[in-house]
Amino acid sequence: MNVTVRGKTQHYRTVSFDAERNAVLLIEQRLLPHKFEIIATGHFRETAAAIHDMIVRGAGAIGATAAYGLAQGAAAFRGTALAKFSQHVENVYQTLKAARPTAVDPVNAMNQVRTAMSRGETVSEQQALALAAAEEFANEDVQHCEEIGRHGAKLVRNGMSVLTHCNAGWLAFVDVGSATAPMYVAQSQGKKFHVFCDETRPRSQGATLTAWELAQQKVSHQIIADNAAGHLMQRGKIDMVIVGSDRTLGRTGEVANKIGTYTKAVLAHRHRIPFYVAIPLSTIDWKLKSGFDIPIEERSQSEVLGAWGVAQNSGRAYVQVANPGSPAFNAGFDVTPAELITGIITPVGIFKPREIWTRRSELGFGG
Amino acid sequence: MNVTVRGKTQHYRTVSFDAERNAVLLIEQRLLPHKFEIIATGHFRETAAAIHDMIVRGAGAIGATAAYGLAQGAAAFRGTALAKFSQHVENVYQTLKAARPTAVDPVNAMNQVRTAMSRGETVSEQQALALAAAEEFANEDVQHCEEIGRHGAKLVRNGMSVLTHCNAGWLAFVDVGSATAPMYVAQSQGKKFHVFCDETRPRSQGATLTAWELAQQKVSHQIIADNAAGHLMQRGKIDMVIVGSDRTLGRTGEVANKIGTYTKAVLAHRHRIPFYVAIPLSTIDWKLKSGFDIPIEERSQSEVLGAWGVAQNSGRAYVQVANPGSPAFNAGFDVTPAELITGIITPVGIFKPREIWTRRSELGFGG
Repeated sequence: MNVTVRGKTQHYRTVSFDAERNAVLLIEQRLLPHKFEIIATGHFRETAAAIHDMIVRGAGAIGATAAYGLAQGAAAFRGTALAKFSQHVENVYQTLKAARPTAVDPVNAMNQVRTAMSRGETVSEQQALALAAAEEFANEDVQHCEEIGRHGAKLVRNGMSVLTHCNAGWLAFVDVGSATAPMYVAQSQGKKFHVFCDETRPRSQGATLTAWELAQQKVSHQIIADNAAGHLMQRGKIDMVIVGSDRTLGRTGEVANKIGTYTKAVLAHRHRIPFYVAIPLSTIDWKLKSGFDIPIEERSQSEVLGAWGVAQNSGRAYVQVANPGSPAFNAGFDVTPAELITGIITPVGIFKPREIWTRRSELGFGG
Repeated sequence: MNVTVRGKTQHYRTVSFDAERNAVLLIEQRLLPHKFEIIATGHFRETAAAIHDMIVRGAGAIGATAAYGLAQGAAAFRGTALAKFSQHVENVYQTLKAARPTAVDPVNAMNQVRTAMSRGETVSEQQALALAAAEEFANEDVQHCEEIGRHGAKLVRNGMSVLTHCNAGWLAFVDVGSATAPMYVAQSQGKKFHVFCDETRPRSQGATLTAWELAQQKVSHQIIADNAAGHLMQRGKIDMVIVGSDRTLGRTGEVANKIGTYTKAVLAHRHRIPFYVAIPLSTIDWKLKSGFDIPIEERSQSEVLGAWGVAQNSGRAYVQVANPGSPAFNAGFDVTPAELITGIITPVGIFKPREIWTRRSELGFGG
């Protein structure tokens, strides 16, 4: 999407590739919203480190980064011996995979690249095919998000207020985003609307990343405490909720997403406010049979006990907010049942949660 | 309640009076939880400033502070001329009233002191009556909280997990607190239970004040992000919710309290978890006919856009968390309807929300 830096507006992708320098270009997301910087990783190990250190985060974004990283690693190989090359590529693959061991997107993305490579008969053919496949993966990610946006934009009416939680924006993908895609497309269609961003404690991705994105695209928005959504709904100030998803169960329509998503769904249901989840097909889990089987990551207590920000006259700083010595409980995700979800916005259309299973052939079941 | 400072445990009230020095003694709440300090205000203007600057906050606590401040101001008068004395007392009254213009507790407390004073025939008699009335007000506040605790403790079963929001603890009253009172009494009865404290963004009173209180009393507790309560309820980890109230409508049973209270009530209702509100009778508003008539204070955006805490190697600091330039919406309170409230714990017993009106004579209607 467009970013304005020192008065100059330019289009950026979250992840892209500079073939001349054999470098992956990434928005340094840890510096946002306080600083916009593109970093270039010149070696696949640096690319893996960028995933590990969360310079890049978000399902689609780390998928594309791993795909580019694999192509980058392949391209760096000197020689023509195919067996040695394959060994090298396997090493690159494992290094990138290990960078975020629980994520499924890097693995899927790299498998796509490897399948394409297998059609090449020489090292240089395979190197070229790897890069082409990585580019294709990234372009498909963008295309899927645009299709989510095209379907979802129909739901955005002029004058509406939309609530979103966490960041399922273009920073989490190669471009456009999932939950934000309907907003960006609606905006391009000339619709006027307002977005309430849950700050999304404890990591504040709403107050930092989503607010930054919306400000860059000049979308009218306000940040609210996670406590405020219920009040706003009660007073008729929210017309629709759109969130993303980390994992959507194909069999049940349950949605695992950032902690607090379930709360917003319960509130929306009480107020008969439509609650939508925007997802690329890659987040559908066709195996699990119950949301209770989804492992819920418990994260560091320090996230709850304090906050990261920028202090006056100094750089990025952590402040301890809570009573020193008091423990915290910090679950990273929660699960929203199908009955609370109005619809799931996918690249191939909007589905009722239960339709994910009944119409699974349209949604690439087994794919 | 008991506070342990440098290994020494001592009983403190949030507000007390040192007659010898004619000084109001206050816990400096703005330094908590990072520092425990008692400050003495030696002049009624300093006492008013302490209310204004939020050294002391909470309905019962500022009521008692104003009552003591009025007695303090009266005691400082030199002379025997009653007319001049009355003029002086009126000046003290207006100064203390102006310190927190929207609060009703300081006014009610000072009216109680003035009524008592009117029974005196000389300046010195009136001065003595003022101090006695202020002490009585403070003692009554404690007694009411103890009675809330006695009734509410019956609800606390061994092994329970209780969720609370914001701080309706002893720091908000002279002692014991409202929402915390059932916990402290249950603890004194030997019951074991666990408390989840909502951090209560944007001002984090749960993570700071409530967690500090519970840690001092050695009550087992964990701080959670406001986003996490729904997940915990869904997983069966919360057995009861107890919160305080800033204003309870006698006619409808609606409860205005810190932003986010309504959300927790909606979640508790969905999960059939009992939701209780603990209140002293002074918070009942017998006039308003609808929760929509309760003015909802909009507070500074900076509360939502950042956080106050303690930075490493430095003192209290504010960090800007949110995207610079993004606006915030910051409502301080919300309103929970009667249908979501299991019971209202008062000093005279536990009532269904609608019973506040039908049994109003027991609750001091018109008093």
